[in-house]
Amino acid sequence: MGNTTKYAVFGAGSWATAIVKMLSENLDEVGWYMRSVYTKEHLLKEQHNPSYLSSVEFHTNQLILSNDINEMADWADVLIFAIPSAFMHSELEKLSADISKKTIVSAVKGIIPESGLLVGEHFHDIFNIPFEQIAVIAGPCHAEEVALERLSYLTISCADPNRAQSIANNLSSHYIKTKISDDIIGVEYAVMLKNIYAIAAGIAHGLGYGDNFQSVLMSNAIREMKRFIKKMHKMKRNINNSAYLGDLLVTGYSVFSRNRMFGNMIGKGYTVKSAMMEMNMVAEGYYATKSARLLNEKNKKKTRLPIINAVYDILYENKDPKTVFKKLTDKLD
Amino acid sequence: MGNTTKYAVFGAGSWATAIVKMLSENLDEVGWYMRSVYTKEHLLKEQHNPSYLSSVEFHTNQLILSNDINEMADWADVLIFAIPSAFMHSELEKLSADISKKTIVSAVKGIIPESGLLVGEHFHDIFNIPFEQIAVIAGPCHAEEVALERLSYLTISCADPNRAQSIANNLSSHYIKTKISDDIIGVEYAVMLKNIYAIAAGIAHGLGYGDNFQSVLMSNAIREMKRFIKKMHKMKRNINNSAYLGDLLVTGYSVFSRNRMFGNMIGKGYTVKSAMMEMNMVAEGYYATKSARLLNEKNKKKTRLPIINAVYDILYENKDPKTVFKKLTDKLD
Repeated sequence: MGNTTKYAVFGAGSWATAIVKMLSENLDEVGWYMRSVYTKEHLLKEQHNPSYLSSVEFHTNQLILSNDINEMADWADVLIFAIPSAFMHSELEKLSADISKKTIVSAVKGIIPESGLLVGEHFHDIFNIPFEQIAVIAGPCHAEEVALERLSYLTISCADPNRAQSIANNLSSHYIKTKISDDIIGVEYAVMLKNIYAIAAGIAHGLGYGDNFQSVLMSNAIREMKRFIKKMHKMKRNINNSAYLGDLLVTGYSVFSRNRMFGNMIGKGYTVKSAMMEMNMVAEGYYATKSARLLNEKNKKKTRLPIINAVYDILYENKDPKTVFKKLTDKLD
Repeated sequence: MGNTTKYAVFGAGSWATAIVKMLSENLDEVGWYMRSVYTKEHLLKEQHNPSYLSSVEFHTNQLILSNDINEMADWADVLIFAIPSAFMHSELEKLSADISKKTIVSAVKGIIPESGLLVGEHFHDIFNIPFEQIAVIAGPCHAEEVALERLSYLTISCADPNRAQSIANNLSSHYIKTKISDDIIGVEYAVMLKNIYAIAAGIAHGLGYGDNFQSVLMSNAIREMKRFIKKMHKMKRNINNSAYLGDLLVTGYSVFSRNRMFGNMIGKGYTVKSAMMEMNMVAEGYYATKSARLLNEKNKKKTRLPIINAVYDILYENKDPKTVFKKLTDKLD
């Protein structure tokens, strides 16, 4: 307590709500921006988010709630974005406050579809934020388990280790352990790619593949992820650290993952459109698949990405999941 | 078909039964040794194993069944052992046939408690079998999914690649894909260690840890396994291949794994003895834990094995699981 650096969370989904909860364990006040006036009013009256992690009770005297993104961006020193990547662009268009001196933290699990950029890159390229002021929060972490205060580990990546450590300290508690890393680009790609592999796991499940295949798929996925990230940003990293492999596993094995659920519907014969309508949302991995494919297309010497290519062919080329996966099984080992 | 090399499987558990099924897809005759006269009679009369994978129907005219281990060892050229490691020693004591020219394949998931040796080492040291004649079958592969003919991948390791390939060919079918490897020692250790990590996963689950922690545990387990195997047998290997990481995942995430179930009971407060009695069997990982610990004790410079040590302290030092895991969480990242 007595911390003078002001933190604000942008977004009102389950991950944003979980992050506000984590910060509330350490800070006297936490800023929280949300689009919905109803959510804000409900939070003030009922002390919980009406739509996500509604079991989490907040002390509203600790929260600075706002529906004005610029007011909140002005107020805070550390801006944590936890908005679904599909809505980032439209939200950021509203942003006119000067954020050039702020610390920008991405808790967005994907790529911004409109720019094709990682969130960190987007802030760097569009808002001219130096990389030392940009950080990324990665799991493995289901928000639902944060609500239950089940022990979870986070990795905070930033080129500036002091900044990373200070964010890590403010997120740590008896149920959150943190570590820091300087591989911001690699971690952002890992966060994005895991959702594609979760879709692949869902498709496989929907097609009737079992646990034996799932483990082969994940074993191939982590090797594919390593190749992809190495090509994009070569540096010494252990791909089996929690922020990469751990995050892949928690998503790929979770029956609650929206990406896995989306894949499962595709595997069971839903069209992409009907699966999206049924889920009433777009899985992050849907965009990530296209972005990953495009990024690889730009490489002179393409990286071998059999899983991502299979998911791409199904989602964007309208190819039959059963046939595509049959071929994929020959490329795995 | 028309293959003149004779294969025999030793054991009548689920994994032995699955391997006989795989071989039956390719060979005109498959030898099958089992201790139980009743199981043999039942197989002949009802065309299925009474106790394991009983949904699998065999063509009994394809099977050479025997209750005499020496008769079967004499008859076959390739001897595949799929006997629980705890019974290997007593079974092998009966073996007087000359097996010095045979190919010995281990499908045993563990270490032989009496000798503290890997099965391959045991045959090499005790029976003087050259390493070129010793192979190992590794998953990831639940026998139950073989019964359902769900796509599964096997790795066959042998110092002699031709021998490995020929075994691989005889196990392959429309639902089994195989690859070969020359890392027989590394694969045997991986098969043994994964059961310890499955016990750890079970303990964590029994204590109330969730999916976020499970993924951190697995991410740490694969790094610990890499350190362990590297110390025992240094060579170039990709620890994320299916035979290592894949096998760890299929076991660590399976609610059907007996090792995980055993750990779960320990986590829920059963004593080791009562958990064993309740399960009416001993989980392979129980012995593996002691062996791994002893092997590491022999090292001049000990490898850091926080997970194995935690499981050891609980199973053999009678320490409180809750306290041990609380300390373990600080050693993981």
